[in-house]
Amino acid sequence: MPTLYHCVSARSFRPLWTLEELQVPYALKMLPFPPRALQRSYLDINVLGTVPFLEDGDQTMTESAAMCQYLAETQDPDNRLGLWVGRGERDHAHYLNWLHHGEATLTFPQTLVLRYGRFEPPERRQPQVAEDYGRWFLARLRAIGARLEHQSFLAADRFTAADISVGYALMLGELVGLSGQYPASVQAYWERLRQRPGHLRALAAQEQAAQAQGVAVAPATV
Amino acid sequence: MPTLYHCVSARSFRPLWTLEELQVPYALKMLPFPPRALQRSYLDINVLGTVPFLEDGDQTMTESAAMCQYLAETQDPDNRLGLWVGRGERDHAHYLNWLHHGEATLTFPQTLVLRYGRFEPPERRQPQVAEDYGRWFLARLRAIGARLEHQSFLAADRFTAADISVGYALMLGELVGLSGQYPASVQAYWERLRQRPGHLRALAAQEQAAQAQGVAVAPATV
Repeated sequence: MPTLYHCVSARSFRPLWTLEELQVPYALKMLPFPPRALQRSYLDINVLGTVPFLEDGDQTMTESAAMCQYLAETQDPDNRLGLWVGRGERDHAHYLNWLHHGEATLTFPQTLVLRYGRFEPPERRQPQVAEDYGRWFLARLRAIGARLEHQSFLAADRFTAADISVGYALMLGELVGLSGQYPASVQAYWERLRQRPGHLRALAAQEQAAQAQGVAVAPATV
Repeated sequence: MPTLYHCVSARSFRPLWTLEELQVPYALKMLPFPPRALQRSYLDINVLGTVPFLEDGDQTMTESAAMCQYLAETQDPDNRLGLWVGRGERDHAHYLNWLHHGEATLTFPQTLVLRYGRFEPPERRQPQVAEDYGRWFLARLRAIGARLEHQSFLAADRFTAADISVGYALMLGELVGLSGQYPASVQAYWERLRQRPGHLRALAAQEQAAQAQGVAVAPATV
């Protein structure tokens, strides 16, 4: 049974969402945000102090988008739910591309908006950097925006782990305050994704676990 | 035959290196850096204006680490060269994790060092941000540093696309001026990677193509 270390609505929401789409058993360990500062013992588990951290047997992972791909393939090897796109299947390249894109291109810039606009003490804030990377993120949405004008999902005409990866970036954009500027096709896509039962179950699971484990329910971006 | 759009020593070096490890035919199209400013017609090919851009039949990709995974699997489906680690094989999780990590965690921070330390006009430079993310990058090397104390490669005891993904981040760190602070195990690893015939062939291929296509041979980080 995989164990996921998670902060409310942080990147670790990606594997949580994946697990809830798969409806498989897992253990969810909630951490205060940022764990590096508020729960130092976590560094003994994950030397980087980052979330997510996933343990599955003797395998460990720190990258949220990689976890989506890994969990989808290993927990549903016959791809009954269609969450992954295998080699030889149409849109294999698109699947891998958007899976990486959600984190590498669409999430990191938002962490700069948060860091220099919100988290740093006032004297270290950098409004120019926060603005540069808010704009940078919105400009990059042009690629999925164009793709979503012609299809409902990013790859293979079905919901896959690539949609979870990008979907989380859009969820974060909402928490960061950038979602009002999404292109129309992206906004409609995000509205579809957020209504999925798997997404709603993941929201409920983190709230319940936070309460049960005595961790604040506010998202890690506040 | 895949076509790769590339700027000298930019992230697109990852798929170039992968192609040279595979020793398969490909077309290499060189662009001046940054193409968004210096070759506007490129926006008709890739709406984001970023490199890399890969075309393979009707599939297109923009994410460099995803391309490594894709090319390794599709160009060598029997994994004769061992460049990918499949589901069910030991270290499948580690393979995916470090493949993503090389870009999402180890490359993006370096682009901030470059942007705010070197590329922006003097009045928009932000030495604090350049320093914050130089330090951020070096702190994140702790994870691969610990792993490389006990093994020569990141996954499955052999050279894989995950090593290309992380190896490029270490190559970039050298161009950025951060490699003097690599942990000893990381420095030794990078020395091993850079001597690989596939890496040397990729360096030669980009230099030859740049000269033939009239593009400056200086790396995109200068």
